[in-house]
Amino acid sequence: MPSELPKPWTIRTRTELYDARPWLRLYGDDVELPDGRQVQGFYSIDMPDHAIIVALTSEDRVVVERNYKHGPRRVCINLPAGYLEPGEDPMDAAKRELLEETGYVAEGWLFLGAFVEDGNRGCGQAHIYLSRRARKVAEPASGDLEDMVIDLMTMAELFEAARRGETPVLGIVAALGLASEALSRENGTS
Amino acid sequence: MPSELPKPWTIRTRTELYDARPWLRLYGDDVELPDGRQVQGFYSIDMPDHAIIVALTSEDRVVVERNYKHGPRRVCINLPAGYLEPGEDPMDAAKRELLEETGYVAEGWLFLGAFVEDGNRGCGQAHIYLSRRARKVAEPASGDLEDMVIDLMTMAELFEAARRGETPVLGIVAALGLASEALSRENGTS
Repeated sequence: MPSELPKPWTIRTRTELYDARPWLRLYGDDVELPDGRQVQGFYSIDMPDHAIIVALTSEDRVVVERNYKHGPRRVCINLPAGYLEPGEDPMDAAKRELLEETGYVAEGWLFLGAFVEDGNRGCGQAHIYLSRRARKVAEPASGDLEDMVIDLMTMAELFEAARRGETPVLGIVAALGLASEALSRENGTS
Repeated sequence: MPSELPKPWTIRTRTELYDARPWLRLYGDDVELPDGRQVQGFYSIDMPDHAIIVALTSEDRVVVERNYKHGPRRVCINLPAGYLEPGEDPMDAAKRELLEETGYVAEGWLFLGAFVEDGNRGCGQAHIYLSRRARKVAEPASGDLEDMVIDLMTMAELFEAARRGETPVLGIVAALGLASEALSRENGTS
């Protein structure tokens, strides 16, 4: 562990540059660096947080979605995921989105961490969860704009899909990687 | 594999809402859904792509940075990473950023995939790389605003740090997860 860690920046003023609530707000932040230098208008983006869910069935298959995503501009493989409602607990949002989008419920929920999408701009946090014994109890009713097909894949198949470029959204591979590592520790293989 | 996959959206018009080049541009996209419905002003953000590097030394330690990041608003553990220059090959950018930020060079570079930061808005792609035999050949000279301390950690230590909330940037845990899975396959443990 290094003895002297860098120090944080201090925000002096935030100027709202574009208001597209509830989806996003763009700011210019005037900040002071630890050495006293002033930086004007460092861009920062607020977005609502979202939850991403790795839900494993009793047969160790992951509940996945095949849907169009406008970020990568194509139909691709995703995990159940969605925005938190205002004031909603992230794990409650995860359970709600899993049920709404896929019709599945699950048990043994484990929080794997919360992470900002962009190290410089922020762009909202992804709250990532692993859950077990996922089983279908209803038909999907997401209300989202995107049509989707629900499917089941093993973790190995999902990593293969990632290598083929079929999971082009960063949070999806982050969730896969964290879930895989958590499962390996449980199984004593790492 | 489901027989009938969802179809993509079609962009009819893009309206630039805020121009903050070279860092970002905000758009409202008018799109047509596969069923013919029209959606006006779906927010989309262009940002420059960036490279993220997992560089392993011959002792299986990862080259890490401890620096302030304005996205999570704190000093945290990160991997070498940085924006691609206009027209720059992503792997060249990865090698350049590793050397500039840490003073290390590495060999055996492996591309682990490119992923948009946000499934809905885009926000630029992270190009993720694994490299080996990392060794220090120079002093760091990043030219970045952030002070940083360079350190070496095992993959296990990095996943522990992730569980403690010390790696709050999504691309960092995505890179860790993908690198860990690639190394497990090489070692025949998955």
